[in-house]
Amino acid sequence: MTADATTLQALPAALRAALGDAHVLTGTDAAAREQDWRQRWPGRALAVARPGSTEEVATVLRLAARHGASVVPQGGNTGLVGGGVPDDSGRQLVLSLGRMNRIREIDAANLTMTAEAGCVLQALQQAAAEQGLLFPLSLAAEGSCTIGGNLATNAGGTQVLRYGNARELCLGLEVVTAQGEVWSGLSGLRKDNTGYDLRDLFIGSEGTLGVITAATLKLHPQPVATLTALAACPDLPACVALLMRARARLGAGLTGFEVMNRLSLDLVRQHFPQLPQPLPGAPWTVLLELADGESEAHARGLFEGLMEAALDDGCCTDAVVAESLAQSQALWQLRESIPLAQAAAGANIKHDIALPVSRIPDFVAATDAALAAAFPGAALVNFGHLGDGNLHYNVQAPPGVSPREFLARHEPAVNTLVYDGVMAHGGSISAEHGIGRLKREELAERKSPVALGLMRAIKQALDPQGLLNPGRVL
Amino acid sequence: MTADATTLQALPAALRAALGDAHVLTGTDAAAREQDWRQRWPGRALAVARPGSTEEVATVLRLAARHGASVVPQGGNTGLVGGGVPDDSGRQLVLSLGRMNRIREIDAANLTMTAEAGCVLQALQQAAAEQGLLFPLSLAAEGSCTIGGNLATNAGGTQVLRYGNARELCLGLEVVTAQGEVWSGLSGLRKDNTGYDLRDLFIGSEGTLGVITAATLKLHPQPVATLTALAACPDLPACVALLMRARARLGAGLTGFEVMNRLSLDLVRQHFPQLPQPLPGAPWTVLLELADGESEAHARGLFEGLMEAALDDGCCTDAVVAESLAQSQALWQLRESIPLAQAAAGANIKHDIALPVSRIPDFVAATDAALAAAFPGAALVNFGHLGDGNLHYNVQAPPGVSPREFLARHEPAVNTLVYDGVMAHGGSISAEHGIGRLKREELAERKSPVALGLMRAIKQALDPQGLLNPGRVL
Repeated sequence: MTADATTLQALPAALRAALGDAHVLTGTDAAAREQDWRQRWPGRALAVARPGSTEEVATVLRLAARHGASVVPQGGNTGLVGGGVPDDSGRQLVLSLGRMNRIREIDAANLTMTAEAGCVLQALQQAAAEQGLLFPLSLAAEGSCTIGGNLATNAGGTQVLRYGNARELCLGLEVVTAQGEVWSGLSGLRKDNTGYDLRDLFIGSEGTLGVITAATLKLHPQPVATLTALAACPDLPACVALLMRARARLGAGLTGFEVMNRLSLDLVRQHFPQLPQPLPGAPWTVLLELADGESEAHARGLFEGLMEAALDDGCCTDAVVAESLAQSQALWQLRESIPLAQAAAGANIKHDIALPVSRIPDFVAATDAALAAAFPGAALVNFGHLGDGNLHYNVQAPPGVSPREFLARHEPAVNTLVYDGVMAHGGSISAEHGIGRLKREELAERKSPVALGLMRAIKQALDPQGLLNPGRVL
Repeated sequence: MTADATTLQALPAALRAALGDAHVLTGTDAAAREQDWRQRWPGRALAVARPGSTEEVATVLRLAARHGASVVPQGGNTGLVGGGVPDDSGRQLVLSLGRMNRIREIDAANLTMTAEAGCVLQALQQAAAEQGLLFPLSLAAEGSCTIGGNLATNAGGTQVLRYGNARELCLGLEVVTAQGEVWSGLSGLRKDNTGYDLRDLFIGSEGTLGVITAATLKLHPQPVATLTALAACPDLPACVALLMRARARLGAGLTGFEVMNRLSLDLVRQHFPQLPQPLPGAPWTVLLELADGESEAHARGLFEGLMEAALDDGCCTDAVVAESLAQSQALWQLRESIPLAQAAAGANIKHDIALPVSRIPDFVAATDAALAAAFPGAALVNFGHLGDGNLHYNVQAPPGVSPREFLARHEPAVNTLVYDGVMAHGGSISAEHGIGRLKREELAERKSPVALGLMRAIKQALDPQGLLNPGRVL
């Protein structure tokens, strides 16, 4: 190779010298890392670097800086917003954390676990369970997503109501900066007021401020019994009233509170007829989960007391409590099959939004009506984590209209209508999926200029050359 | 006044014109705001500005910048590290948030409350209670500290084990930047992944990055019953074992877990002989608090089951569960009287430290031994929030030695010994009190250069003129 040793084209060779040939992929070997799993963002990478240690990550970043390559950190590549795949310039380096998959320590008496960024979420759940402990982060992609990506995007999931987002489950981080320095901020401390909260700044920054290489995570005691119930509610205000009741009665025992509108479950019935639906035809169905420290009988008593009171005052019109673990799993399967049933029904326009719980009924009423007026016949598949104020508010083409055609023609207008409603009701246009490339322009338009100015100042301060995941978030 | 309209000396007049004469204090009127309540940092202010609205805070910051005055934000002036009072140059402006004391909104169905920075913590607790809800932040100064100060210092207190620090109780902020711009980040959302976590960056930054003017706070359902118990433990490892047991059995019901060594309670007996001590002479005494969503009888049953098991396996040697609210309060009074008993016994060298819970026994054994060797006869008053890994590890002069003299001669060496031990055991030199001026040099020495570099880059980016609370933290 005769190219100047610091040109972009010389970077793969420099990386091979540093990491070994096997850990720098180019050409077809790199293909799986160049686009997202939904194939929305086909890209082309200069190379894929697979460092095996924190020091090697630092080396990769220093080499990238020297050769003028920007760096796209990648975990399990399960993201939904195009944040973890390269653009199509062929000039970006993908930094895959997959080889950094050691659990460094489990400290049971401190209820903490220190794990490297490339650990698959499910492996962490299992490692905690083997100690009789719980790592509560749980989401659909848990079999392949990695904890580094979970933290970089502040992942949510199904247990946020009780245990918080990924942010709340993290006590400390190890991060490689844009300059290739290592911040050793791993810490098993519940209290530490020694300066600015760097941890939370890196969490949720989607790889644009630094590369997370390891984290110290909170563990919890395993509940003795977990029980699931289903309730039929007449409308959304009744769902909110049931949530208030459940929070007051079950306290921290309430670990899940999911809502599903009728169309969501109708789609499930249509595409997964084998799944039993114990409360068919309800305008709204709520799935509740209760984790109990005492016994299944105690949990059942609590649930039955709650449901009796809720039936009495009209919050719900019917309810069932699962009789077995298998029944519990079947109820969760209903909820989890909605995205699959939707996919089977054709493309739709997805919105991952959050609102104050108290304003959800008004938002849904107003936005449903506005959509019905603007796009007659369009259908609302509306479900999500009501306990966290997080809705997956998805718009489907009218019957008889080609979904692809509907999307091609109306997606921007539908998004504008929905996001206008979200903003008017004090909400967020990205609850748990992040910004990435998908919502970057939307964010620039809708976030306050002061907030954007603060974000840009921080980006400039930490990554003045703009090497880390450029074009994402900001 | 003939001075140049932009000199420092012209600032009070400009502030009077903007805020009204009554809200700009100088001379003796300002005295109460110029030093901390423990009179450790006597200062002299150019003036004290008392803006009544967010817009007025922005005006004050813009005027201060124009006149070249640095600004010291001040809440209830209850801090312990000199972070909220001016230096003695007479050139700093105190920005008192006391007039901004409105509760803007309580949204019961969203379990949130939006309050201005100058609201006294106790007033917020009461406002929540009037709605049948709980704002769980609770600490000794709650009758006079303000929520703005609580957030600026990420306050801890007695309920952290269950509800987290001030950080975990805050969903959104309104902040005036160093440039006098208003970031309207008030939000009642539990999930919001739209960009960098500015909220957590301002929380705990001790007024050096921006001025918090309002916050949206999380509320919780009120527990139905709260019960307190006391347990006598043979040693610290037994206290840790009891904590593990209590967390596993009581789950989120466990709201407090405080330890007190024998000397702590001996001092209380000596100075407050009227307080009953149900388990006298124990090497270590644990105070447990349990909040229950069902009934007092249910809580009592849980406590009794826990204590029986703990007695069986030797975690504790004796235990009592409070029979009444009055008894519960008396037990808490024991714990809360320790600082007062210590003060009565004379000055001592205080350390507000945090450690991984699992490493506390080793840290205490090693550090006790090192102190005994270096300072024969010095006594350890050791108590704190074991559930959070937070100890108040205080060193008292040997009997017969003048406390003042002991401090004057040995304080730096004692601090070095204790903080060396803290660092060697993965701990923090400031668990909940912050850095301020007290621990600024200690932080500069002990924090990693990479972390300090990141902090300085952020400070420079957000406050390039260094106007906000200079000389604190960094």
